[in-house]
Amino acid sequence: MDAERFERQKNFILEIDKEKNILRQTHLSGGGRRENDAEHAWHMAVMAYLLREYANEPLDLSRTMMMILIHDVVEIDAGDTYAYDEAGKATQREREEAAADRIFGLLPEDQQKELRELFEEFEAYETPEARFAHTMDNFQPVLLNDSNGGGDWREHGVYRSQIEKRNEKTGTGSREIWEYMQKIIARNVQLGNLKGEPAGEESD
Amino acid sequence: MDAERFERQKNFILEIDKEKNILRQTHLSGGGRRENDAEHAWHMAVMAYLLREYANEPLDLSRTMMMILIHDVVEIDAGDTYAYDEAGKATQREREEAAADRIFGLLPEDQQKELRELFEEFEAYETPEARFAHTMDNFQPVLLNDSNGGGDWREHGVYRSQIEKRNEKTGTGSREIWEYMQKIIARNVQLGNLKGEPAGEESD
Repeated sequence: MDAERFERQKNFILEIDKEKNILRQTHLSGGGRRENDAEHAWHMAVMAYLLREYANEPLDLSRTMMMILIHDVVEIDAGDTYAYDEAGKATQREREEAAADRIFGLLPEDQQKELRELFEEFEAYETPEARFAHTMDNFQPVLLNDSNGGGDWREHGVYRSQIEKRNEKTGTGSREIWEYMQKIIARNVQLGNLKGEPAGEESD
Repeated sequence: MDAERFERQKNFILEIDKEKNILRQTHLSGGGRRENDAEHAWHMAVMAYLLREYANEPLDLSRTMMMILIHDVVEIDAGDTYAYDEAGKATQREREEAAADRIFGLLPEDQQKELRELFEEFEAYETPEARFAHTMDNFQPVLLNDSNGGGDWREHGVYRSQIEKRNEKTGTGSREIWEYMQKIIARNVQLGNLKGEPAGEESD
């Protein structure tokens, strides 16, 4: 064991413990407290394993899982940006790149490069693994929120068009899961949990 | 998409959300609140990826990661059994098997079998993947606890011999990590965070 290498690995491992304190807007199923990033990543990784049969293309599973597990590490410095916070989203990329420099920079150089590449691959949304990871990233909160009667959408006054825009590429990871999500969305518009658009044409 | 199959997968995915509310005895680094099982599994899976170079034997990485991610699902019904709770440990196996029947039973049959096998493989402690997963399971709380000045050990009055007994097979997953852990243990005995044994021969 190279003591300096191990020390760097250990420092990264302890640093990412902080991800357990980064809260998302999504609430746990059963109407519980807000979910944190570490829990979200864990849930997504299990989902990726179980639902990979619905991916549009064959996947490198361990690559997909690791991409999922570390995709939110940057939020330790950059914070969670809510999907429908347009002001926050404008500076998100810059804040997250600086965070990636610092946090992945704790690792030995080879692993720094490896994890940074996985993070950038997720962000670039161009490989089958990244596309499917994003499908999980988008499906997981929809599933929780739907199980809670759409409370998070109601609280933030989310429009159907916003959720559809956020999910415009979800079907590139899995057409079948996106079709299923569209049914959830339609049902929640009908129930009044998501706002229809434009105003005056909302479902009743 | 087979709607009934997907419904079963979805039910399992929503059921395991409850793992985020199963608290462990370990506290987050920085002296924070108690950690939950989902966070612990997430942390272990990232560690397995980063530290696999120290495994005694070559590993199937995605198998190891999934084993780690689901190894505590049974605690949704069976609860967390603290490593040094001898009374709880006496009934642990039985409680966890009943939980495995119910929770994995939510899945479609093929995945039920697959995850149950992963869970039993972890418990049996016989494959390189299971051995390394256990090394992560034991190293992760030691790392957090050491970073917190050994508070969890002090709170529970843990003896060096107890932690050594719990870790008697940790070196079968990774000799190098177990050697490193032994240094952490020795330091914490010296600091009085772990009790030496027998009474009267404690380090000062």
